[in-house]
Amino acid sequence: MATATDNSLEKRQQIAIQLRRWILQITTNAGSGHATSSLSAVELMAELLFGGHFRFDVHHPDAPNNDQLIFSKGHASPLYYALWTAAGQVDRQRLENYRQFGSLLEGHPTSRFPLTEAATGSLGQGLSVGVGLALAAKMDQLDYRTFVLLGDSEMAEGSQWEAIQIAAQYRLNNLVGVIDVNRLGQRGETMYGADLHQYQKKVEAFGWQTVVVGDGHDFAELSEAYHRAAASAEQPTMLIAGTTKGKGVPFLEDEEGWHGKALDDDQMHAALEEVGQGDPNIRGELTAPNDRHPLTVLPADAEQLEYRLGEEVATRTAYGEAIKRLAPQYPEMVALDAEVSNSTRAKFFADSYPNRFFEMFIAEQNMVGAAVGLGQRGKIPFVSTFAAFLTRAFDQIRMARYSDANVKFVGSHCGVSIGADGPSQMGLEDIAMFRSVQESVVLYPSDAVSTQRLVEAMMNHHGISYLRTTRGETPVIYACDEQFEIGGCKVLRRSDRDRYTLIAAGITLHEALAAHSILLEEGITVRVIDLYSIKPLDHATIRKAADATEVLFTIEDHVPEGGIGEAVLTSLSDHRTPVRCLAVRKRPLSGASERLLDDQGLSAEKIVAAVKAVADSN
Amino acid sequence: MATATDNSLEKRQQIAIQLRRWILQITTNAGSGHATSSLSAVELMAELLFGGHFRFDVHHPDAPNNDQLIFSKGHASPLYYALWTAAGQVDRQRLENYRQFGSLLEGHPTSRFPLTEAATGSLGQGLSVGVGLALAAKMDQLDYRTFVLLGDSEMAEGSQWEAIQIAAQYRLNNLVGVIDVNRLGQRGETMYGADLHQYQKKVEAFGWQTVVVGDGHDFAELSEAYHRAAASAEQPTMLIAGTTKGKGVPFLEDEEGWHGKALDDDQMHAALEEVGQGDPNIRGELTAPNDRHPLTVLPADAEQLEYRLGEEVATRTAYGEAIKRLAPQYPEMVALDAEVSNSTRAKFFADSYPNRFFEMFIAEQNMVGAAVGLGQRGKIPFVSTFAAFLTRAFDQIRMARYSDANVKFVGSHCGVSIGADGPSQMGLEDIAMFRSVQESVVLYPSDAVSTQRLVEAMMNHHGISYLRTTRGETPVIYACDEQFEIGGCKVLRRSDRDRYTLIAAGITLHEALAAHSILLEEGITVRVIDLYSIKPLDHATIRKAADATEVLFTIEDHVPEGGIGEAVLTSLSDHRTPVRCLAVRKRPLSGASERLLDDQGLSAEKIVAAVKAVADSN
Repeated sequence: MATATDNSLEKRQQIAIQLRRWILQITTNAGSGHATSSLSAVELMAELLFGGHFRFDVHHPDAPNNDQLIFSKGHASPLYYALWTAAGQVDRQRLENYRQFGSLLEGHPTSRFPLTEAATGSLGQGLSVGVGLALAAKMDQLDYRTFVLLGDSEMAEGSQWEAIQIAAQYRLNNLVGVIDVNRLGQRGETMYGADLHQYQKKVEAFGWQTVVVGDGHDFAELSEAYHRAAASAEQPTMLIAGTTKGKGVPFLEDEEGWHGKALDDDQMHAALEEVGQGDPNIRGELTAPNDRHPLTVLPADAEQLEYRLGEEVATRTAYGEAIKRLAPQYPEMVALDAEVSNSTRAKFFADSYPNRFFEMFIAEQNMVGAAVGLGQRGKIPFVSTFAAFLTRAFDQIRMARYSDANVKFVGSHCGVSIGADGPSQMGLEDIAMFRSVQESVVLYPSDAVSTQRLVEAMMNHHGISYLRTTRGETPVIYACDEQFEIGGCKVLRRSDRDRYTLIAAGITLHEALAAHSILLEEGITVRVIDLYSIKPLDHATIRKAADATEVLFTIEDHVPEGGIGEAVLTSLSDHRTPVRCLAVRKRPLSGASERLLDDQGLSAEKIVAAVKAVADSN
Repeated sequence: MATATDNSLEKRQQIAIQLRRWILQITTNAGSGHATSSLSAVELMAELLFGGHFRFDVHHPDAPNNDQLIFSKGHASPLYYALWTAAGQVDRQRLENYRQFGSLLEGHPTSRFPLTEAATGSLGQGLSVGVGLALAAKMDQLDYRTFVLLGDSEMAEGSQWEAIQIAAQYRLNNLVGVIDVNRLGQRGETMYGADLHQYQKKVEAFGWQTVVVGDGHDFAELSEAYHRAAASAEQPTMLIAGTTKGKGVPFLEDEEGWHGKALDDDQMHAALEEVGQGDPNIRGELTAPNDRHPLTVLPADAEQLEYRLGEEVATRTAYGEAIKRLAPQYPEMVALDAEVSNSTRAKFFADSYPNRFFEMFIAEQNMVGAAVGLGQRGKIPFVSTFAAFLTRAFDQIRMARYSDANVKFVGSHCGVSIGADGPSQMGLEDIAMFRSVQESVVLYPSDAVSTQRLVEAMMNHHGISYLRTTRGETPVIYACDEQFEIGGCKVLRRSDRDRYTLIAAGITLHEALAAHSILLEEGITVRVIDLYSIKPLDHATIRKAADATEVLFTIEDHVPEGGIGEAVLTSLSDHRTPVRCLAVRKRPLSGASERLLDDQGLSAEKIVAAVKAVADSN
């Protein structure tokens, strides 16, 4: 049973003073940082941690039932680090390195600071990650709670309202948001200024319990508010607290022009005078959580693969079959989809494992944030929607990398080959987007067997990975025992007489294979490579092909920028063999799949023509 | 003065029947398309256009005071095209080409259909474009109104709530949303099913007038609702209409499993029986608008450029100075910013031209959509925020291309060189993102003069363009009369003895210039190119450098994927000179700007080392 702390009101007040001192000192020491945005939230966080509300085992920071804290307003990092210092989790000498090169205490929290579950700093993302943490608690029957500190400015982000609606939908009474309404944004007053009611009515309309805290610097009022949050039976709770930016330092209080600015030395000393005498050795006690662990589900064997060579199976279908097949083997695997699970085929999994599937409705940003949160609690989240619509969440995907997140993305309906639905539905920039995320893995299978194997590979990979699937059916070209690994490729056609190399993946691989046959009849022998792993790339095999043949052709159902062609060029930046990049270079239209591929020069016939044009010119 | 139409109730009912017949016929003819999602909105749109509410000069579809109609639920394109057919704007023979290759009637509306102001199909975007159209009306003192048909599923997108909050903030009483609450999404029931109150309370909490229409198929109820919308003095109005998916065909009505499906021939004939006898020649009359035109503001001369060579000016500052300087010359130019105008320097313009500046708060998706709308009405919108946060709106940027939008994006704080704020604030993927947008222009100036000139070039370019600006100060290296053009570059250091070429832009250009000097002292002569236009690229100059020197080095404060290096590689895919790509390859940290550049191998010293390593190995 959790035991209450005995931090008296006086002690909490003392802690608040010391938090303010640290905030001022470390930002001045760094010469930058958000002092005033931190000062406004001091009591909000001091009461949370040291008022007995936040349950955290200070001796086991990784204990599975520890409450979770996310600073969605990541620019309040001075408070964040000061808070954890007061909680005894950070050596106070370390505070001096705030924002210095190499310090774990970065300008905005990232996963390099060990207690960070969600890297923030791009606003409006923390609550979504909190949704994921809260969903994980429900799944694991743990009673930890997740608290998210929110800025008032960032409530303008649509992603907040996606998170708010989903949290209500899933009845996440274990999720508590705290809006620090300090009235001032970066460049002046926020949309609603100090009007707490504006936030209250909106959040309430979206189905949350709201608790308005008129004076967000009053410990008693805050204590009462946190108790009300704890008592919520079915709803998430939003504390909406009126605060003063720069609180505690009269010449900063509620003043414009101080956002994101550190004080100079003289100003800091004057400010410290105002804040009062502190005690750098003061440490607050935290309430310990109940000692609980998630139920361990033992893995079972997955069913064997069963596809016949030549069988027509869309890779999106194989994806759905893969996550369903592998579900027993990976009990922590979960799937999220944005109301298109019948198209992405995540439905196959959802129908068999409804408790491990999350319908996130058409709100891709929050879906990605929630997946990050689920991944941080040990789940293995697969996130699927149309490849085109993953662009909606690029900022969340980008940020996930700084959370060291473990999320598997699956984009269906890639390329012009989707056909008549037209360009809005075509994923044509997704390879470029996912390649640009550092350390990411980008996979693009061409048949059902490789899809299944690559899903397994993703399951066992920690980090950001992306699988690109195709809408239309393609024949199975690999035997079920074929092995695939991240960073590999397959040379499917090879001879000693190869003059050219065709490098393709997904739908265009089948066009390349057909082109191979046509060219063979005409006496031109080409090598064909299935580049199923676009990042990392099998440099060695590509270079070997460049050594052995006269020209390489890359063929992709994607724009040329940032795609397969440019990836291959990086492998050959010091190689003399020329590369020709066939890609989607014209504005795509509606129409039949084959017609659209042909229109973009990606059909077997057009590949043949491109090869022959080179052959004729030699 | 506008005159009312005389389409009787009976006539509107007859039109509705014919709309349903066309919807069923063209989807069956195409073999795909969203029949049931179109059927639910027939009366909503028939009453709007033919009940005297929508003012449109059928003889002048481009008349500036015509009301605007956006189908945010772009999948209801069968209804969209049928509606404009009934309005006499489409030859009905053309309907037969729906979704065929080359047809202007694509699967989802794009700008190829002349009446389309906003390409849709990625959900949750139409209302933002509507905000832009409505803002343009206010600016131009035109009394046209903008109507946006919304699906219930897409209300889950956060971007909707961004648009809703901003529309209320700007008191856009000339904006009317119509939510077609047909209960069913693609894969089953939506989050709120048929509960109209859920939409009402939320939209109302966000400050709109709401009108609930219990039966969205009842012309009288709809007429009353549109009249209430027209009477709103200060608020935008949302019609929340309960409808039946598949309405008019009993075996489709409110049934799951029919989303996005066309009927087969037999089913279609049965459905047409149910719908009743139509008249393909029926045409509804539209009310004409008042004949008004926007006030013409005559352009005035812009001030001359005044920068001294060597003067330290951040390119973000030069951007702010550029839009302010050019404002008199381009009266249609407007600027939008996401609450960081003091950082992006859009503030310089905002302070001088407050009526042409739109504070869009921290809601990037809606900001981009609104800019698209403003551009469609002849404004020249500049959209600025941190480069990193433009990733938030990738889907909107991608879709803008299909609207033939004219929007100028400006991303500040690019690269690791921003320093201590850390990776969340660093634009490291922005070049890759913007390059991947077809027909886009990507510019990256290194000093104040080139920034000013490139802003001018963007002003005169129609389409999607992007300018990347730097946080820190850099010296002016160009004289004020230097000319810059989209697709060009500058060779800044050249000799007959150049062994290597350094290609850089922005902050790294200055490192490259410093490296040039160091290398020169050591007897190694290098060519230096300022690649200020990353897309399109000056292939000829790059190839000339490749002809003249042994190795090219690209140096960029951006990830390697999709960046400057890969762009240059495409110019040299058949060239034998090797290219070495220096880029941000490690996880960036917080720290001082110079330290971070050095850590990534992008400082002058590291460039020198890279060149010498190559020189030594030869």
